[in-house]
Amino acid sequence: MSARKEPDEVEFLSGLFEGKTTGAPIAFIIRNKDAKTSDYENLKDVFRPSHADFTYQEKYGIRDYAGGGRGSARTLLPCVVAGAVAKQILASQGIEVLSDVVQIGEESSESFTNDEIERILSRFREEKDTVGCTIQGIIKNAPVGLGEPAFMKFNAVLAHAMMTINAAKGFEIGEGLHAARMRGSDCNDAFINDGGKIRTLTNHSGGVQGGITNGEDIVFRVAFKPIPSLMQPQQTVDIQGNTTTLEIQGRHDVCVVPRVVPIVEAMAAMVTLDFILLKKCNKI
Amino acid sequence: MSARKEPDEVEFLSGLFEGKTTGAPIAFIIRNKDAKTSDYENLKDVFRPSHADFTYQEKYGIRDYAGGGRGSARTLLPCVVAGAVAKQILASQGIEVLSDVVQIGEESSESFTNDEIERILSRFREEKDTVGCTIQGIIKNAPVGLGEPAFMKFNAVLAHAMMTINAAKGFEIGEGLHAARMRGSDCNDAFINDGGKIRTLTNHSGGVQGGITNGEDIVFRVAFKPIPSLMQPQQTVDIQGNTTTLEIQGRHDVCVVPRVVPIVEAMAAMVTLDFILLKKCNKI
Amino acid sequence: MSARKEPDEVEFLSGLFEGKTTGAPIAFIIRNKDAKTSDYENLKDVFRPSHADFTYQEKYGIRDYAGGGRGSARTLLPCVVAGAVAKQILASQGIEVLSDVVQIGEESSESFTNDEIERILSRFREEKDTVGCTIQGIIKNAPVGLGEPAFMKFNAVLAHAMMTINAAKGFEIGEGLHAARMRGSDCNDAFINDGGKIRTLTNHSGGVQGGITNGEDIVFRVAFKPIPSLMQPQQTVDIQGNTTTLEIQGRHDVCVVPRVVPIVEAMAAMVTLDFILLKKCNKI
Amino acid sequence: MSARKEPDEVEFLSGLFEGKTTGAPIAFIIRNKDAKTSDYENLKDVFRPSHADFTYQEKYGIRDYAGGGRGSARTLLPCVVAGAVAKQILASQGIEVLSDVVQIGEESSESFTNDEIERILSRFREEKDTVGCTIQGIIKNAPVGLGEPAFMKFNAVLAHAMMTINAAKGFEIGEGLHAARMRGSDCNDAFINDGGKIRTLTNHSGGVQGGITNGEDIVFRVAFKPIPSLMQPQQTVDIQGNTTTLEIQGRHDVCVVPRVVPIVEAMAAMVTLDFILLKKCNKI
Repeated sequence: MSARKEPDEVEFLSGLFEGKTTGAPIAFIIRNKDAKTSDYENLKDVFRPSHADFTYQEKYGIRDYAGGGRGSARTLLPCVVAGAVAKQILASQGIEVLSDVVQIGEESSESFTNDEIERILSRFREEKDTVGCTIQGIIKNAPVGLGEPAFMKFNAVLAHAMMTINAAKGFEIGEGLHAARMRGSDCNDAFINDGGKIRTLTNHSGGVQGGITNGEDIVFRVAFKPIPSLMQPQQTVDIQGNTTTLEIQGRHDVCVVPRVVPIVEAMAAMVTLDFILLKKCNKI
Repeated sequence: MSARKEPDEVEFLSGLFEGKTTGAPIAFIIRNKDAKTSDYENLKDVFRPSHADFTYQEKYGIRDYAGGGRGSARTLLPCVVAGAVAKQILASQGIEVLSDVVQIGEESSESFTNDEIERILSRFREEKDTVGCTIQGIIKNAPVGLGEPAFMKFNAVLAHAMMTINAAKGFEIGEGLHAARMRGSDCNDAFINDGGKIRTLTNHSGGVQGGITNGEDIVFRVAFKPIPSLMQPQQTVDIQGNTTTLEIQGRHDVCVVPRVVPIVEAMAAMVTLDFILLKKCNKI
Repeated sequence: MSARKEPDEVEFLSGLFEGKTTGAPIAFIIRNKDAKTSDYENLKDVFRPSHADFTYQEKYGIRDYAGGGRGSARTLLPCVVAGAVAKQILASQGIEVLSDVVQIGEESSESFTNDEIERILSRFREEKDTVGCTIQGIIKNAPVGLGEPAFMKFNAVLAHAMMTINAAKGFEIGEGLHAARMRGSDCNDAFINDGGKIRTLTNHSGGVQGGITNGEDIVFRVAFKPIPSLMQPQQTVDIQGNTTTLEIQGRHDVCVVPRVVPIVEAMAAMVTLDFILLKKCNKI
Repeated sequence: MSARKEPDEVEFLSGLFEGKTTGAPIAFIIRNKDAKTSDYENLKDVFRPSHADFTYQEKYGIRDYAGGGRGSARTLLPCVVAGAVAKQILASQGIEVLSDVVQIGEESSESFTNDEIERILSRFREEKDTVGCTIQGIIKNAPVGLGEPAFMKFNAVLAHAMMTINAAKGFEIGEGLHAARMRGSDCNDAFINDGGKIRTLTNHSGGVQGGITNGEDIVFRVAFKPIPSLMQPQQTVDIQGNTTTLEIQGRHDVCVVPRVVPIVEAMAAMVTLDFILLKKCNKI
């Protein structure tokens, strides 16, 4: 689905011994074998619109332009590896992290097929344009009690993690933005006794009440803007402030889908596992 | 606008000397003079729908039910005091934090008057119901370069802070959720030379690119669910799991507006000031 | 033993409900009822030798001189309260924190009586001088496995905590400074099988090996300098840099003993409890 | 001076671009080319006395025995690289970090030559024994105002950093342990006006007062126990608790000197630089 070939090999440096984790930090390195600095040479003095070029240059006074540098979404690849470890541990506790593309541009669905997605992306690729999307994540079987009441609410830390992903512009949990349009009598989740277990009849809350998980599915959505690297000329300025027209070379994706999907799941898995560990300190 | 009278007096305990801050932590205490535990007595064994009662009870095995306990939005009052200090410091740097109610239930506007707001809230109060809302915040004149590129992005920390506020269910920056529906050629912000200063022609990014502020207005929105304390009977369970009908007594707001407005501003002010201090460590 | 009367009353503000901790932060306030700002009025423009006056003034550009301000050892009183809670929790796990004065000036003993201590202090008080001391602490029955291998070693965090106490100038664990004079064949602790339990024959390590507790007594010492407030004239400079002679008024202790003893225990208790909670996250 | 040949090559992975730091984390890797797992094969089921074998095994239930694993002092090598960067930055501010061996076993001096040190170490090597030592560090020209008044005192963080080094058993600043034997009239540092600059006549404080640097030399000492790997038979137990005699193979140092010297300097440099950056946030 992506025009770039990046056969990523993970070399583990520490934390594993005879196939098991040792409790030491798991260090690993993924070398970018497909990077061509020459692809980026013509960008070194130009600020790409809606990229981090300008803000990095202003903040640090220096900018490593190759491969998009530290602002590249490739820097989230280690999070996917870490998330894979987290997901294994969660699975051993019966906890699952799932996600779905629910919106691409103007098209929304709860059950896009890969073919449908590829067809939409192709259309934008042909138009030399890019497109935004929304991913919905669900964390299933998380225990009651994850999250701290004040400054480490589960939903706040999850929002932090999701807004950390490149191109994320919005985060919702449960009813999300729609909750602003609702009345309390529609939005409240009545408690019920479900065969001896206290649950909620509905899940407008998205699995979190008062910042703490309540045992229901944790349902959230993250909205991503279109990828800013367009295959069409764009007006911008260079590092000296001269107006110029930018024509981006190289290979670029049309949408953060499909690459972003495992990142959303990885981030959700790490947040959940962190809180599970933290909860162990809850009582002596 | 609120039926509860809570004449809050702040007693400062440390950090001020002869009218000036000393650099020591500013400790203060605000005693809740209007709390009547009896108002909450009938709630002590019941889980109020969409409140934190159930999650607190499950997490801690004990619950201080008086005044809603630690889950009460009153616990954010100290943030308003802290935010007031932050806003003074920001003002000395020419930075302003503003906010507006932009949506209450199904009604949206960029210029609600207080009368209009009160009229909407009255309607819900009469119907013994509550309603959600959306607040838009704008941080003006923040310098370029606030925020860290990876795990402390400005937008991620701002999202964390906003989702920390009771009842928040969604956070957006710039185009926010709408960005998912856009194409890159519409969503990108072209750089221009504005009389020697590099700026963007549009501000779809909402003042943040690559997690770092770019000098444009920082524009964000926070969606809040309706207040879950309804003046009408609700079905729920008690602490033993018995089904029961809850009738909430006491004085309760209809909407987090207007109380939440200064909280949003306070949180935004603290995040901005934190990053301004952090930026000082950017270079030696 | 102290000439100052400071009948400290603790008012608890949060975290307790019907006599039990709720899991919320335990906030409390201890008002200094015996402070007379006038006692310190003549110090406001003078830098007391070996006090924090000069460094605070230089760091902050302002100084709250009353009662010694934030540099006063009184600011450690809340640590004693927090330590008292920690000690109760530790006791429920069979863990004890003990301490002894082992040196005052040139006199050392492992079994000073209170009378002996008071006699030594009286002598210095009569000479209008002050004196240093060393406290030895022992943490008994701490479990194996407290402490992290790299940057949160048990001994490193304990050293941090002890050097946080006003007037502390040195920290030792196990053989401490004397270890530098030893040879390996004398200093190593041989492992033995003590009725099925692996223990060490000696405890030169002081209960910590590789930064992690090994189940033996954790034995440490903290050396404190003499209290710098002397009842005799001292040469110094004022805030303008003028040479002046300082005569301190008010009531001042001769030695950090006995006040420092509960502080050492409190700090040790908090460090131990923190690591016990942290250890709970050790394995899933 | 060491029998082990470890030609360490540093490969930088990030944070440098065209010879300059970019503000991104500086990641690097040093591969241990001289490690022979077979040297450690016979240790895998035995607890070496006064090593971290037992505590790691108990804490994690698994142990990577090769090369001493994570408890090896080799794991501090990255600190030396990081310290080298810190020292360059400090040097640009005129700040120097120096250190000296001041004690090896029973011999003490402020001016050991390399030959003298080697002669002492040879003697212990011939006796198939090891020996402890004390390193003195001096930080010169650090500005006034480094360190926070309460829980991040300069001396406390420095102690934490030094006690993090393998084999450290004691830390002193200024008069250190000796302060316990002194009287106030001898230990206080009188302030003087030294040509318009406020300084202290003596430096018993070791450059820190009230947890904050006062502009004088920061003088500290760290005591290290003898290296626990002896070339002579030692009694111990194996992982099943059986008594056994351990004969360590491989190449082992006699004393943490000389390897520890650059580590002490590196740690001191990092602490100092951290506080210099932190101080930038001191005032707006």
